[in-house]
Amino acid sequence: MRAFVIVGHRAVTAPTFTLKDLPGSGGRLDILLRSLNASLFLSHSIRRDVRTYLVLLGPPNAPRTIRFDGASLQHANPDERSLAILVEKALKTLVTGHYWQTSTPGVAISARGLEDLDDELKGLTPTLLEEGGADAFTHPWPSDVAVYVGDHEGFTESELAHIEKVREAPRVSVGPRALHADHAITIAQNALDRAAAASASGTSPTQ
Amino acid sequence: MRAFVIVGHRAVTAPTFTLKDLPGSGGRLDILLRSLNASLFLSHSIRRDVRTYLVLLGPPNAPRTIRFDGASLQHANPDERSLAILVEKALKTLVTGHYWQTSTPGVAISARGLEDLDDELKGLTPTLLEEGGADAFTHPWPSDVAVYVGDHEGFTESELAHIEKVREAPRVSVGPRALHADHAITIAQNALDRAAAASASGTSPTQ
Repeated sequence: MRAFVIVGHRAVTAPTFTLKDLPGSGGRLDILLRSLNASLFLSHSIRRDVRTYLVLLGPPNAPRTIRFDGASLQHANPDERSLAILVEKALKTLVTGHYWQTSTPGVAISARGLEDLDDELKGLTPTLLEEGGADAFTHPWPSDVAVYVGDHEGFTESELAHIEKVREAPRVSVGPRALHADHAITIAQNALDRAAAASASGTSPTQ
Repeated sequence: MRAFVIVGHRAVTAPTFTLKDLPGSGGRLDILLRSLNASLFLSHSIRRDVRTYLVLLGPPNAPRTIRFDGASLQHANPDERSLAILVEKALKTLVTGHYWQTSTPGVAISARGLEDLDDELKGLTPTLLEEGGADAFTHPWPSDVAVYVGDHEGFTESELAHIEKVREAPRVSVGPRALHADHAITIAQNALDRAAAASASGTSPTQ
């Protein structure tokens, strides 16, 4: 199982955005939608072993977390507008505290923030995807992993303290250039796919 | 210089699509837009050393090629809708044969197809990004490269003949899973970034 936890510090927490302006009206919701795509989609199929959590921390109802479960996800197309409509439907769903309320098949929402996801991620090794870490292509990935990814603002100090100190997540990086969150996730998935294939065949991940 | 040549076999060649349905009305234009994003965008900046060619082969005016020049590109945001508007403006521009007509700064259109781009790509080593090739992370990338990428339908036999036989492009692959074109481009860019960094410092690309 792979989980991706993606934090959007300005992403709106009510269905107030317009599909005509996801970056502006959605608080850079576009970044989260592309990150969702990068974590879940294969060519002609969905990664059934992935759960992606979009942590929305913008106005007016923060925090909200939307969970996409690859194993049961339906009606998901890779284009931004289609994924935005799934987020809109989730934000229109009545939320009761930390309980996961299903909005559409495979999609659920709750009033959780980053720290409230720890029980969800039990059994998965926490890993921080951020600049200045070990190389993703030589990192010894476990098969069950929870990958934390920041938006264009990265992480706050208290978020980093939770991920790196409380959760003891090692820091892993994808390469020599600073990339958008979705591109970093695509590369991390490739590194994870290579680690899984190498583990199955006993070879090196970049062989 | 890196060029990416991305072929959309059903992508419309007139500004007839609606922004509300890029996959359907645009002939999977969404795939090309995400591929454009993957080729051109860095975090908070644009790759100035990249040119991306979207080869549109759908109705009613095929072929059309839209060229995005990272060195002079303006008004480009990474979200699909913003990039679709740049494509729409290009398709509204009067086209005269193989001449590159500028539509917005850094964006130009002509009535070229895949084979008509060979003179544009002079001095760049052709490379085919496709399943069943050498590993992108150990491939000896030159610094000046033209990477050919297919859409969800891959390439036709005659396109492959042109790329692999006429142009003698080696086949390079990104990993163990079949991926969307944009994800493959993101990983290829990472392999190219690593090759460039390793070449500058004399180390291994996945070190």
